[in-house]
Amino acid sequence: MQFELTNEFVAHVEQLIESKEELQLSQLFSEVHHADIAEVLDDLNFENALFIIKLLDAEKTSDILTEIDDDIREKILKELSSKEIAKEIDELESDDAADIIGELSEEQKKEVISQIEDVEHAKDIVDLLRYEEDTAGGLMGKELIKVNENWTNMHCVKEMRIQAADYDKVHTIYVVDDNDVLKGRLSLKSLLTTSTRTPVREVYNPKITSVRTDDQDEDVAKTMQKYDLFVVPVVDEMDRLVGQITIDDIVDVIRDEADKDYQMAAGITDDVQADDGILQLTKARLPWLVLGLFGGLGAAYIMGGFEEALEKYKILFFFTPLIAAMAGNVGVQSSAIIVQGLANANIKGSMWDRLLKEVGLGLVNGIVLALLVLGYGLLQGYDLTINYVISSSLLVVIIIAALVGTFIPILLDKRGIDPALATGPFITTSNDIFGILIYFLIAKMMLGF
Amino acid sequence: MQFELTNEFVAHVEQLIESKEELQLSQLFSEVHHADIAEVLDDLNFENALFIIKLLDAEKTSDILTEIDDDIREKILKELSSKEIAKEIDELESDDAADIIGELSEEQKKEVISQIEDVEHAKDIVDLLRYEEDTAGGLMGKELIKVNENWTNMHCVKEMRIQAADYDKVHTIYVVDDNDVLKGRLSLKSLLTTSTRTPVREVYNPKITSVRTDDQDEDVAKTMQKYDLFVVPVVDEMDRLVGQITIDDIVDVIRDEADKDYQMAAGITDDVQADDGILQLTKARLPWLVLGLFGGLGAAYIMGGFEEALEKYKILFFFTPLIAAMAGNVGVQSSAIIVQGLANANIKGSMWDRLLKEVGLGLVNGIVLALLVLGYGLLQGYDLTINYVISSSLLVVIIIAALVGTFIPILLDKRGIDPALATGPFITTSNDIFGILIYFLIAKMMLGF
Repeated sequence: MQFELTNEFVAHVEQLIESKEELQLSQLFSEVHHADIAEVLDDLNFENALFIIKLLDAEKTSDILTEIDDDIREKILKELSSKEIAKEIDELESDDAADIIGELSEEQKKEVISQIEDVEHAKDIVDLLRYEEDTAGGLMGKELIKVNENWTNMHCVKEMRIQAADYDKVHTIYVVDDNDVLKGRLSLKSLLTTSTRTPVREVYNPKITSVRTDDQDEDVAKTMQKYDLFVVPVVDEMDRLVGQITIDDIVDVIRDEADKDYQMAAGITDDVQADDGILQLTKARLPWLVLGLFGGLGAAYIMGGFEEALEKYKILFFFTPLIAAMAGNVGVQSSAIIVQGLANANIKGSMWDRLLKEVGLGLVNGIVLALLVLGYGLLQGYDLTINYVISSSLLVVIIIAALVGTFIPILLDKRGIDPALATGPFITTSNDIFGILIYFLIAKMMLGF
Repeated sequence: MQFELTNEFVAHVEQLIESKEELQLSQLFSEVHHADIAEVLDDLNFENALFIIKLLDAEKTSDILTEIDDDIREKILKELSSKEIAKEIDELESDDAADIIGELSEEQKKEVISQIEDVEHAKDIVDLLRYEEDTAGGLMGKELIKVNENWTNMHCVKEMRIQAADYDKVHTIYVVDDNDVLKGRLSLKSLLTTSTRTPVREVYNPKITSVRTDDQDEDVAKTMQKYDLFVVPVVDEMDRLVGQITIDDIVDVIRDEADKDYQMAAGITDDVQADDGILQLTKARLPWLVLGLFGGLGAAYIMGGFEEALEKYKILFFFTPLIAAMAGNVGVQSSAIIVQGLANANIKGSMWDRLLKEVGLGLVNGIVLALLVLGYGLLQGYDLTINYVISSSLLVVIIIAALVGTFIPILLDKRGIDPALATGPFITTSNDIFGILIYFLIAKMMLGF
């Protein structure tokens, strides 16, 4: 029942393209889901992918275009005429259509819109293009089923037959008043189980969660997750029903958000992907590396200040990478827990409670690690005082690193900055410098150089 | 229209609980969504939360229990009798019911199940408990609407009225044959737009994507995302329809998966949360710190081997944290990109292509960073040879770190190990050691000590 993408299948497709077996290709793809075809095209070279797009019906290719890799879509759209693009757009739901048109140049946008056959569809798309991409308005589609609260059940079924004929999937039947203001929803259950003469007003469910056109996509995602919604209606400033957002679009938002946090923790900005170009990848990676470099230079500078201790206490210098690494690791751990806690809204108690807890955690972890280092030093026959210096400053550094890792994301969050920024290179770098400074200060104090 | 959790509201609730205003509390919560009440209870102390649970109807509290924090639910269940728990279970859909019963002790499980009033419901739950938690069987619910392919449209509507009366939401109408084998789905559209005498056989859509009871939850998530599904039917080994999975459960799987990767990258195992105990947090964090510690000890050991160079080339030792940090940062970046690429299946080309690309990236980033270090050294008036040693080995270390960061996750993935394991402490630690070793080897070669 399921399609599986194999190298053999791709090779077979490539062979058919080479020998221009158009009929066989059409037949081959007729039973394959558009998401699977998109995967096949992602694996073909560009000329072959374009060949397939030009070969298949717009009904199928329009869906393929929404699923295909962004870069390939961009290249394909460049090879299509405005008329051909308009044909694809005609087949798409308004939100997907608006997304694709939004990628075109201003000039081409106008040309394509003017060639869309269905005027209502064109209006919907133009309407959607007004909204910011990362708001509810930018995510919503205009296709939905709505009934008037004054209609009878029978009238509803009749009207819904007309409306439903246009749409693939019906999720929720919205109830509006004469001014199009959202009143609630009509469940399939009540539609099926009440008499045909009952007016909608008497059977609809007025409890409905909606979002506003200007709500941020992340907030829409939170709302839909919290209330386990599959679709959410979108209303304008006057509570009029203007569209709906389906969960599949929100799943993408959730994934993107998680991916962004993960990348930030790894010191990558700009949402790059493995198959992006070297220049783009460098732009996303180099700034964080430069930040790390400054941290390293700072550490080198600090150590330069303790140069006179070098002759007497060589071993002290052998442990600088260890101190820096532990400070970085602990800081990243602490900040990651806070960042996730903030994202999932499950942090309780005040900031002071959190910091106190981190001190406790730092103590427990720090003591274990300090004892391990102490043991290693004894085995290596290090001077006992130096051994104490290294292990006790490790303990102090770990506690402070945990505090910094906890404090910075909370501070950023309070100031309205994405706390995920704090995890990764930012924390690592500042903790590297702090750690080494504290280490040498404690050493100076204990050894008296 | 939307509820907002405020401190005032929580204080008001606490006050009402203290003065035992049960009626007022019931009224206050009657219009509040169960997900919102769960948030309120998360904010109350345990005695007060329990008071509310005991006060409200099972119809409401059952839903609240599914949304509330895991630790609080566990404590509440301990305070409820088997009969009380059975009452809650009676109100829940089979998948949520099975999840809650799954948390009980073996003995209590039996007691609760024996007290469930609806025998069919109890059977469904027992059935679901057989499946592994992280498989399609463990995620699915038994509630669904199905019609026989031999029925007429009218017969369907009649049967659906009976079935739908039991369920809150109808997502898909499944079509099965006499042996319960899944044949396809009946769209609301065809139900609404075809004559009442048409048999289902003639109008149903045979194209339907299903998953098997033993499919992994991550694979179900991938399938539902790829095909933009809101619900997916689950079939057994004989293709018989046994349940369905809704997207809200899958959203949780996707979030958990992303959270897990993020935590691993930060050096945290075990899926801990900010509000877990110190012991649990230590268990999740300490092993990675110990790994990091070994890395640091390794670095110290290596430096010890180059001790004789210390007197002549002090500056060399000041730059060890910088070399280690850069090796770590680059490695984490490279591995994060690969891990995400593997997760989103958008890595093209062979492993050699990837490695070659990383060499290119390493060269570009490395040259920029090496030049910056060179400039710093000139400003500080370092010996020119040492300056060359530091900057050229930085370049080499960066390229090798990028290769290690790329190679390890790909290798892990090929061996069936979660590649996310490679990002974070694992890569950082190994790159720390590699980096410092390479650094001193190059220095030895160039300076001849």
